[in-house]
Amino acid sequence: MNYKELLLHPSSRPFIRQARFGIEREGQRVDFSGQLAKTDHPKRFGDRAHHPYIQTDFSETQIELITPVTDSVKELFQYLEAIYEVASRSIAEDEMIWPLSMPPVLPEKDEDIMIAKLSNFEDVLYRRYLAKEYGKRKQMVSGIHFNFEFGNDLLQVWFAQQTEFTEFTEFKTELYLKTARNFLRYRWLITYLYGASPLSEENYFVDKPAPAEPVRSIRNSSFGYTNHPNVKVSYSSMERYLSDIERMVEEGKLSEEKEFYTPIRFRGGKRVADLSESGVQYIELRNIDLNPYARVGINEEQVEFLHLFLMYMLWIDQETAVDEWVAEGELRNEQVSLEKPFEQTAFYDEGRNLLQGMKEMLVALEEIESLPLMDELLNRMDDPHETLAGKIYQEVQQSGQHEFALSLAKTYEAKSHERPYQLAGFRDMELSTQIFLFDAIQQGIQVKVLDEADQFLRLQHQEHIEYVKNANMTSKDSYVVPLIMENKTVTKKVLKEAGFRVPEGAEFTSMEEAITAYSRFAKQAFVIKPKSTNYGLGITIFKEGAALADYKAGLAIAFREDDSVLVEEFMPGTEYRFFVIDGKVKAILLRVPANVVGDGKRTVEELVAEKNLDPLRGSHHRAPLELIQLGELEQLMLKEQGLTVSAVPEKGQIVYLRENSNISTGGDSIDVTDEFSDHYKKIAQSAVEALGAKISGIDLIIPDKEVDPETNEKAYGIIEANFNPAMHMHVYPFAGKGRRLTMNVLELLYPEVVNSSINNEN
Amino acid sequence: MNYKELLLHPSSRPFIRQARFGIEREGQRVDFSGQLAKTDHPKRFGDRAHHPYIQTDFSETQIELITPVTDSVKELFQYLEAIYEVASRSIAEDEMIWPLSMPPVLPEKDEDIMIAKLSNFEDVLYRRYLAKEYGKRKQMVSGIHFNFEFGNDLLQVWFAQQTEFTEFTEFKTELYLKTARNFLRYRWLITYLYGASPLSEENYFVDKPAPAEPVRSIRNSSFGYTNHPNVKVSYSSMERYLSDIERMVEEGKLSEEKEFYTPIRFRGGKRVADLSESGVQYIELRNIDLNPYARVGINEEQVEFLHLFLMYMLWIDQETAVDEWVAEGELRNEQVSLEKPFEQTAFYDEGRNLLQGMKEMLVALEEIESLPLMDELLNRMDDPHETLAGKIYQEVQQSGQHEFALSLAKTYEAKSHERPYQLAGFRDMELSTQIFLFDAIQQGIQVKVLDEADQFLRLQHQEHIEYVKNANMTSKDSYVVPLIMENKTVTKKVLKEAGFRVPEGAEFTSMEEAITAYSRFAKQAFVIKPKSTNYGLGITIFKEGAALADYKAGLAIAFREDDSVLVEEFMPGTEYRFFVIDGKVKAILLRVPANVVGDGKRTVEELVAEKNLDPLRGSHHRAPLELIQLGELEQLMLKEQGLTVSAVPEKGQIVYLRENSNISTGGDSIDVTDEFSDHYKKIAQSAVEALGAKISGIDLIIPDKEVDPETNEKAYGIIEANFNPAMHMHVYPFAGKGRRLTMNVLELLYPEVVNSSINNEN
Repeated sequence: MNYKELLLHPSSRPFIRQARFGIEREGQRVDFSGQLAKTDHPKRFGDRAHHPYIQTDFSETQIELITPVTDSVKELFQYLEAIYEVASRSIAEDEMIWPLSMPPVLPEKDEDIMIAKLSNFEDVLYRRYLAKEYGKRKQMVSGIHFNFEFGNDLLQVWFAQQTEFTEFTEFKTELYLKTARNFLRYRWLITYLYGASPLSEENYFVDKPAPAEPVRSIRNSSFGYTNHPNVKVSYSSMERYLSDIERMVEEGKLSEEKEFYTPIRFRGGKRVADLSESGVQYIELRNIDLNPYARVGINEEQVEFLHLFLMYMLWIDQETAVDEWVAEGELRNEQVSLEKPFEQTAFYDEGRNLLQGMKEMLVALEEIESLPLMDELLNRMDDPHETLAGKIYQEVQQSGQHEFALSLAKTYEAKSHERPYQLAGFRDMELSTQIFLFDAIQQGIQVKVLDEADQFLRLQHQEHIEYVKNANMTSKDSYVVPLIMENKTVTKKVLKEAGFRVPEGAEFTSMEEAITAYSRFAKQAFVIKPKSTNYGLGITIFKEGAALADYKAGLAIAFREDDSVLVEEFMPGTEYRFFVIDGKVKAILLRVPANVVGDGKRTVEELVAEKNLDPLRGSHHRAPLELIQLGELEQLMLKEQGLTVSAVPEKGQIVYLRENSNISTGGDSIDVTDEFSDHYKKIAQSAVEALGAKISGIDLIIPDKEVDPETNEKAYGIIEANFNPAMHMHVYPFAGKGRRLTMNVLELLYPEVVNSSINNEN
Repeated sequence: MNYKELLLHPSSRPFIRQARFGIEREGQRVDFSGQLAKTDHPKRFGDRAHHPYIQTDFSETQIELITPVTDSVKELFQYLEAIYEVASRSIAEDEMIWPLSMPPVLPEKDEDIMIAKLSNFEDVLYRRYLAKEYGKRKQMVSGIHFNFEFGNDLLQVWFAQQTEFTEFTEFKTELYLKTARNFLRYRWLITYLYGASPLSEENYFVDKPAPAEPVRSIRNSSFGYTNHPNVKVSYSSMERYLSDIERMVEEGKLSEEKEFYTPIRFRGGKRVADLSESGVQYIELRNIDLNPYARVGINEEQVEFLHLFLMYMLWIDQETAVDEWVAEGELRNEQVSLEKPFEQTAFYDEGRNLLQGMKEMLVALEEIESLPLMDELLNRMDDPHETLAGKIYQEVQQSGQHEFALSLAKTYEAKSHERPYQLAGFRDMELSTQIFLFDAIQQGIQVKVLDEADQFLRLQHQEHIEYVKNANMTSKDSYVVPLIMENKTVTKKVLKEAGFRVPEGAEFTSMEEAITAYSRFAKQAFVIKPKSTNYGLGITIFKEGAALADYKAGLAIAFREDDSVLVEEFMPGTEYRFFVIDGKVKAILLRVPANVVGDGKRTVEELVAEKNLDPLRGSHHRAPLELIQLGELEQLMLKEQGLTVSAVPEKGQIVYLRENSNISTGGDSIDVTDEFSDHYKKIAQSAVEALGAKISGIDLIIPDKEVDPETNEKAYGIIEANFNPAMHMHVYPFAGKGRRLTMNVLELLYPEVVNSSINNEN
């Protein structure tokens, strides 16, 4: 088979970079002094045996982050960043994730290294066996597993161009076998460039032979976590490979097939033996050290390189003496792993030739945008200081590896907590959706973004699929509910019929019609508004009734915005947003116009600047609160109060900078959930029920919340029910307790997984 | 109590016309010769005992139409017209509704008059008693029952202005008692103006005393359907009224309280006796003859007059000698009823004074828009020919009453069937909603229009409430379903994941991004389209692939319409709309561009004119098909075929006048449901299920519907699923069988009431 020809075939062109990726990243939980965490894996992740994203590896402290399979590098890192951030924010507040492959200083006593407390006893037994066979300490090393699959269209096109194989699965198996053989032969180059475990910490090599540190990669050397030397498997054919592994197990050299720690694994069915049936579906590279300069342990450059490297392993020839070929690779990798970090590698020429060959392949395939990366890597061939091991060793010489790692861990920890309302990887989405994604990942519900700009998610747990838009539009509400809420007249009719107090009024579709109703409203407080617009446009409020001429003027303004106009009783009082989920008020929010409180010393301008320092404030809806402006409108508002931006308000004086209470114009969100008795909560709950909704933000006007609505029929009025209510302002309010509504929605969708009363405690 | 003062009080002004109305209208079913129908009440109305709109009165042939209580005269007639039209279209095709109060020629034998076959045996027994007591023939007379209630705000305002009563119910009871006494005293005026039963037909007065016909109103005279003369009840107080009725029943003069046939009934609780507890809620006038000049038996003028007349009964003084006062009214009404139709009434002066007094009241209340009606009625005092009885008698003299009535019945029958896709009273709503309303009324599901312009309905059967918009948006679909369908990318992802064939492609948000994907599409048939627009704007199709420059041009056009652009595989074939309801394909429609078929004789213009005669064609979406135009686009299309509007196409030649197949531009809708085998139906059903929808119109491209999709993976492609699919085009297609989808939706909502397999048979 001439794979080079397949790669070069014109029909491959559209799909040449098509591939699927997946990453598993391990990392030790440590405290702020860099000692192994003494706590258990956090309960809030639920059942880790089934968690798709966050599990534990060998030890209880060794967290494992797992991305789903993705079709692009971009998506791969979106998930990896997000999962990392969820994990780092969900572990105990005084813990963080160790950024190195080599573990921190380990406890002196073996028993202080906790084996992962998995619920499946077989899994525990296997770990106990490993501890006995290899020693607990060796198992504490962490790394990246990189799963890779050539794209299906690409494979299909290749398959169509060849005649050697009639079965697609056989074709794929042979293709990945070749990739693997060459990979094993040349993987030393990866160790050279990205090896990142030059030193060990105390209590790692206890009673075991240790390398003469520093080196390029302890983890990739024979001092790392490898099988005993008597484990030998041939890559000459799939049959041979499988029968060798089987034999190793039979002979007791391996306890089971998964104990075979090859740097590249073939993946197909559930068990290794299934490969003979299913063929190879993808390959798993296991030789990548954690890159401490990347928060998540690996960066996009590395993935790009690995992708092209694997493609090149297909491009170049292979030796027919397979076992010798692979054995030569083993030797070279061992040698490179144990070279000193600053030392030029013994295989410098072969390395340069590989990178030059990759450049030629890229040119031939017209994939020239990756040429600069190849040139960069060629430089690193010449300058070992620029390799990962080289860079780390330089820093370690100054501060010591422990300090180096601790400092990085703290930096990453701080970054994770900087904007807790955002989620790395998905920062272009709406805040409510980012928070919702966070919760779904934390709870182990599989999430996929179907449309980023449209905030459209697909969730899955086992067979249970849900689609969610804007974090609040779900299958739990019926189609007709938002349509009812969208129509103010219909909403009022439904609520009124169910016995709730809504503004009395009428809808008109012409001036004439509306004018005949003048006498109904003339002497009361009333409001004229367009039926369907929502941004305050076209609204006129008459708090003392109105003369006919003013009534007409108000109508004219409203009719400019819509063909239908509502004239309604005006209800005085304070507006509260009641957020109801599944029949319960989960949060009550008061919105207050942009304001500052004087201290008798600072000017308005200074007070605004200080208030704007709050990390909850930002711009363009990227934070739960917006920065307070001092523009024309705000200055006008100050002027009306006899103030300017340089006035110094008295101590305790509240200076409002806006009339409207919108959060988007700098208003404050204040959680007042606990200030309300059950009376009003029940009203909100029943009203939402009358509208048939499971999730709604319903706005009540309440003149005095101490008044019992059962004794006073004008104690409240319902002015609107919202079918797409913002959630983030409740989760991260300006003042008062945050209410994790996203978790409540998740529980509504997945009661079999989520228990918000546990999860919201934290 | 000075009611005049209450009426005049300024606080009454805004509510002075506020009232609630309800009408019951009886009518005999007859065949086209005017003989009583021999069929049973149609089964498709379901259980008539619980039908809110369409029941039977005394005889099986006597249909009774019942409006709900409405707040306006407009709404009252909307319902009455609609219910009439539903009834007249739902009875057998060779039957119609007799337009007179007096029945048509009755069968000679008593046993040929069928007592209504009600399911409740007590109801049947009661009718048997009536037949025995009064004779079957007398019971065959029909009329209008007019239910009236002063508006609640108006009553509350009045109540607040007076001090005599402390209980609101007592206040109301006294108010309606006064209204009733004066009504009974002056009701002769109604008989004079609107009496409309001058003659009887054969076999009505068999073995009974008969009046010397013609008169003003047989029905309102003692020859009509009245109690025996020994039934006397006092209106002096509610206690007296109730105890008198009780006594009549005890003495056996009435079999039960409902046998008391007063021209005005007090209504409150379920039984008459409940009135002492509940007070009077409303009154029921029973003295209105069917107005044959109104299809529904009464017109808006009459309702306006009755409203003002009842108001006036409150306005004027009452005699303290109540029983004599009422007795005087009885005498006068009997006298007027039996006057000859053209004769000036004996109470001319009192009549003029009443109408003049009403004018004065109207002026005092500033309700001057009703003055012209009063002047018109004053004219009728002078000219008895202009009264209803006078007008009827004039016509009857020429043609005979039977012919007169038969001719009117046929006119009304034709009108009911003229546009079966519309529903009187609701013609401003969308056709699908009109048809849906028709079905709901027919099936006895209570309907209320919450918002006419928004096609928003509220349905109710017993405690079961449903809201419906556009006749297809219901509680059965979930909120997230239309959101999925609205987003083409998400729809495709969901369908593809579920294993359906959708156009392969990608979404781009920038030119640059889209251009990099050029090689993926360059050589295949593909289409570029904006993601979210729906009207064909910005779409470019490349059936043979495209050069890069053309690809870029197509992108530029699409990006003008939307920020997101889809580039997709183009699927050749015919597009079919599969309409799926509750997991089943209920209709498949093919849409064909506007066209005519030549006959070798007529010009294109003549062929179009003839095709446009189809009553299914109309304009502005008021008919299921649109008129074919011969505008610029059509003429251009002709020109491309080498034709003009005056060309004469050959016999059988199909001339297309449009490229697009939209119904809105004159296209034909062709039902092809039965032409499809189950293969494609199952695909459509499963695809809609995968999207989670209960109601959807899903569009499949099928190159050849004879190809089995299980053997050919390119046999179909799904291009769109619609969450607001038009229904009327399936119910009334241009060709093929109509599919009553509205009934299927109704069954989905109310399986406890509707069985579409029975109802759609008809």
